[in-house]
Amino acid sequence: MKIEKENSIFSFSKANTPVAKVKPKEKICIETKDALSDEIRSENQPFDSINWEKVNPATGPLFIEGAKEGDILEVKIENIKITREYGVMLTGKDMGVLGDAFERSFIKIVPIKENKAFLYDYEIPLSPMIGVIGTAPKEGSIPCGTPGEHGGNMDCNIIGEGTTVYLPVHVEGALFALGDLHATMGDGEVCVTGVEIPAEVSVSFNIIKDKNWKLPMVKTEKNIYTLASKPSLDEASITATKKMVHFLSQEYKLSKEKAMFLLSAIGNLQICQVVDPLKTVRMELPLEFLK
Amino acid sequence: MKIEKENSIFSFSKANTPVAKVKPKEKICIETKDALSDEIRSENQPFDSINWEKVNPATGPLFIEGAKEGDILEVKIENIKITREYGVMLTGKDMGVLGDAFERSFIKIVPIKENKAFLYDYEIPLSPMIGVIGTAPKEGSIPCGTPGEHGGNMDCNIIGEGTTVYLPVHVEGALFALGDLHATMGDGEVCVTGVEIPAEVSVSFNIIKDKNWKLPMVKTEKNIYTLASKPSLDEASITATKKMVHFLSQEYKLSKEKAMFLLSAIGNLQICQVVDPLKTVRMELPLEFLK
Repeated sequence: MKIEKENSIFSFSKANTPVAKVKPKEKICIETKDALSDEIRSENQPFDSINWEKVNPATGPLFIEGAKEGDILEVKIENIKITREYGVMLTGKDMGVLGDAFERSFIKIVPIKENKAFLYDYEIPLSPMIGVIGTAPKEGSIPCGTPGEHGGNMDCNIIGEGTTVYLPVHVEGALFALGDLHATMGDGEVCVTGVEIPAEVSVSFNIIKDKNWKLPMVKTEKNIYTLASKPSLDEASITATKKMVHFLSQEYKLSKEKAMFLLSAIGNLQICQVVDPLKTVRMELPLEFLK
Repeated sequence: MKIEKENSIFSFSKANTPVAKVKPKEKICIETKDALSDEIRSENQPFDSINWEKVNPATGPLFIEGAKEGDILEVKIENIKITREYGVMLTGKDMGVLGDAFERSFIKIVPIKENKAFLYDYEIPLSPMIGVIGTAPKEGSIPCGTPGEHGGNMDCNIIGEGTTVYLPVHVEGALFALGDLHATMGDGEVCVTGVEIPAEVSVSFNIIKDKNWKLPMVKTEKNIYTLASKPSLDEASITATKKMVHFLSQEYKLSKEKAMFLLSAIGNLQICQVVDPLKTVRMELPLEFLK
């Protein structure tokens, strides 16, 4: 099944009407617009031509059959295909870490070919990742540009091909959506964007019952991660760490002190992004220590 | 030349008397005590037997011949040899990220053999690193447990064998010292210690004249890093990023926007530690993009 990118939401909410019903294990191809709704085509385009109300579209939502409140939605990222020959970056006045030091704003077009992004003379190997991925919150409406416990705009560059993402199910069917793909993005996303691209993302779903994990979580071939988004990196660091201690206690019966000694010795507290309305931190633990 | 570990300081200050004079390129072996002044020998030792006034000793200071105010001291970490068959970890009440959730404190003895640390049943490959490394500040006295622009307790796990560290020279001779070695430590150091060890560290020095870099900086075979220590991770992130933008402007004539686009696409903003009096962040940039 293919979900076309015209099916966009700009907030995660249970009020959104599902665009398709999906069965667990079914392979779904989700088309996405870039984070600027595919509207930037030139570095000379006036900066005020950007429609900020159309920023960070996510394609969906999908109604996942069998997903009930309290379940965990497991999302396997099977494949990411970039569908345009260039990416877009923005930075400048009031944007990103150096927002206070710029007098104007800048658009950068980044050609993509031969599996590389060409930023000025730099040839950057592609490492496609998903910026926005989430489910509907229990109540209210969360803009797609904001991360949280429902997922959303976590801008976690670990979420690429082969990654599994664990999200909460707050409403029947979960109402899953994703978007905001990046051809490449460093931890921090300091200029305020990655290399923003449209893409086709192939995913499949699974529903996990009767687990009390503090989400979102992410798993790769080598590591498991707990993620937290908070007003400050300091708060996000504490919460991400506590979520991993909780997971180790639930699944491996580790005491608090044993979990903390393990995380201090070989866990890595890492920054996802510092430029969204909440900041995101992940705690990484190598799976080899969880046998 | 060997500097014995009995030559300890507990603060970086120009008032400290040098324990040796060292020439650039001379190979020096520096013995260090562990961060608890080698006083912990048992997990059953009463927690209040720890003398907090003797925490975080650094061995030194060394007077580096030819180092003048305004120079940069380049420190090459040639070799680290662990000199005890166990490391020590602490956590618990009021310590580390979970300090609010413990009712008492814990000492953990971590046997070290066959190039591994044995934490409970976990066999952790060793990755020795230097927690405290710095020079005297221009004025005043900075406890060895506190990081800053002079270096100090940055707890940056990148600072291991083969790493080069760049520190400011604020006073003649720089007054360099190091200590607080860890057999292994994850980014964050969330429990409040790494696997604390005594060690012998072989270093050599070089003096760099007429460079305007914002220090400390670190270089490995593959990456270059700017480091910042601030009251919050948010502030440290901003400063570490701005230091790298400054470096790219000084050495490679990059404009602010070019530097920010590059860092956002392939620079990584990373956490060193979240548990010292100031928190430390580093910005990583792969050297392959600086040819």
